[in-house]
Amino acid sequence: MAPIKIALVGIGKIVRDQHLPAIAKNSDYQLIAAASRHGTVDGIDNFKSIEAMLDAVPAIEAVSLCMPPQYRYEAARVALDAGKHVFLEKPPGATLSEVADLEALAASKGLSLFASWHSRYAPAVEAAKSFLATTTIKDVQVIWKEDVRHWHPNQEWIWAAGGLGIFDPGINALSIVTHILPRPLFVTSAVLEFPENRDAPIAANITFTDGQKLPVAAEFDWRQTGKQSWDIVARTAAGEMVLSEGGAKLSIDGKLVHEEPEQEYPMLYRRFAEIVKAGKSDVDLAPLRHVADAFMLGKRKFVEAFHD
Amino acid sequence: MAPIKIALVGIGKIVRDQHLPAIAKNSDYQLIAAASRHGTVDGIDNFKSIEAMLDAVPAIEAVSLCMPPQYRYEAARVALDAGKHVFLEKPPGATLSEVADLEALAASKGLSLFASWHSRYAPAVEAAKSFLATTTIKDVQVIWKEDVRHWHPNQEWIWAAGGLGIFDPGINALSIVTHILPRPLFVTSAVLEFPENRDAPIAANITFTDGQKLPVAAEFDWRQTGKQSWDIVARTAAGEMVLSEGGAKLSIDGKLVHEEPEQEYPMLYRRFAEIVKAGKSDVDLAPLRHVADAFMLGKRKFVEAFHD
Repeated sequence: MAPIKIALVGIGKIVRDQHLPAIAKNSDYQLIAAASRHGTVDGIDNFKSIEAMLDAVPAIEAVSLCMPPQYRYEAARVALDAGKHVFLEKPPGATLSEVADLEALAASKGLSLFASWHSRYAPAVEAAKSFLATTTIKDVQVIWKEDVRHWHPNQEWIWAAGGLGIFDPGINALSIVTHILPRPLFVTSAVLEFPENRDAPIAANITFTDGQKLPVAAEFDWRQTGKQSWDIVARTAAGEMVLSEGGAKLSIDGKLVHEEPEQEYPMLYRRFAEIVKAGKSDVDLAPLRHVADAFMLGKRKFVEAFHD
Repeated sequence: MAPIKIALVGIGKIVRDQHLPAIAKNSDYQLIAAASRHGTVDGIDNFKSIEAMLDAVPAIEAVSLCMPPQYRYEAARVALDAGKHVFLEKPPGATLSEVADLEALAASKGLSLFASWHSRYAPAVEAAKSFLATTTIKDVQVIWKEDVRHWHPNQEWIWAAGGLGIFDPGINALSIVTHILPRPLFVTSAVLEFPENRDAPIAANITFTDGQKLPVAAEFDWRQTGKQSWDIVARTAAGEMVLSEGGAKLSIDGKLVHEEPEQEYPMLYRRFAEIVKAGKSDVDLAPLRHVADAFMLGKRKFVEAFHD
């Protein structure tokens, strides 16, 4: 099969760090264009807008949309209307309803839509899922604490309404948890902490449960300096499972059982090629739905102003 | 066909005002029991909990759940696990995910789940939908302004996290708008006003659009004294459509074209009997999804404390 002629839209840090190397190493793809208000990619045609790019380069078969979520719907719609398959960076949109609309549009046109969740492809995630499927889980704790100044320096969009704040990393945890646990979760309580000068939360404490009353607690915090934590801890009948470093390492009762180099974006692009070839979509809204539920159900607390 | 043996759970104002008269007049039902922490229904067996009721009265075939949304999932699950069909008052739950879970559970057991939206059955709603289907819509304004002290005196649960605040009536507007407009909507911006002493908003301004960029604006306010407004106004190529009084009256260019007495709850119970007989569910989460999206995307503003 000929490589999929792909274009990138929204050229920023995540594209340079992850998308470009993943596409370059995958023979399923040929990168032929890019569109971005500010960024460019060397060695291919660059455009200021997706509309200009699609007009000028009709050979494009698929687009990967990496701009902030608040602008993703419009671009996705333009791409689907032009008959292109669409890869959405996470989160797939600013609202659940707009992604549902895109999913229906893609289906009506026989195109593939991929709502990507890169953390689900972290190295030890499948091993954690397999382990949990064989035992009885007593409770689960999710601890996702990082330093926003280090990871998102001066990224204003993450603090704007629709930018999700702490849920921007937190949704990575939710994408793993919803994948590895045996039953669907739902939020039962939440406290969201908003800096008094920002429209998005800097921290959140959430409790979930499932149809069998499994207690699941998540602590998300963007004010963590020093040691960073991206851990999911499950107490089970077969011992304590710790999935740490964002899904990279798995330990059972303190014994390391799974560790390998991360390949998240290469695996995302492998998956996208797979669904394009199969003529289907892959859109799981559960992680974003939990975030929306937490906002709807949660108590709001105002905390100290945040300045970059 | 023998009448459906039904039980009511959560006996409060809405049950006495609407559910009891609707069930009494419908020969598809026989009301045989009720469960409530505080209320009772004369002439039938009453219980303190749904569990006690289902244990004592195995003949129950369906339950109608009318307690506050924060407590609805648990009761619905108990009922579905006991093999009963379930009618959910609006909103169907405190989170989207819990309702999705119930929907899957009902499907797995071959039971009917009904997420009821009573305002969709207001007298002029179908006429409004038919009118809008024949013309081009320029824009839509939703004005839902009422006096919370009059309509919800001392109902603490509506102010608690998960009680939805102004969205408790506002979701009625959204249930109509999502039904009468030709394409799915999604929220593009929202401002939610929270009284400084409450966990739920007292007012909200929301803008929506759809795949064809239709401008839709909604103003929800619980501080309206004097004239109450439950209006949906659409400017169209065929004139200005006003669906007023919560869906009871329809006017085109000032001319009243549809008005009849409201029959919302009788029609809901007719619909529920229909899906039970057909062995299917009716769960449209779009109104609740828009509320969750507005909370997720919206800016929060703190306003004057609210005291009943």
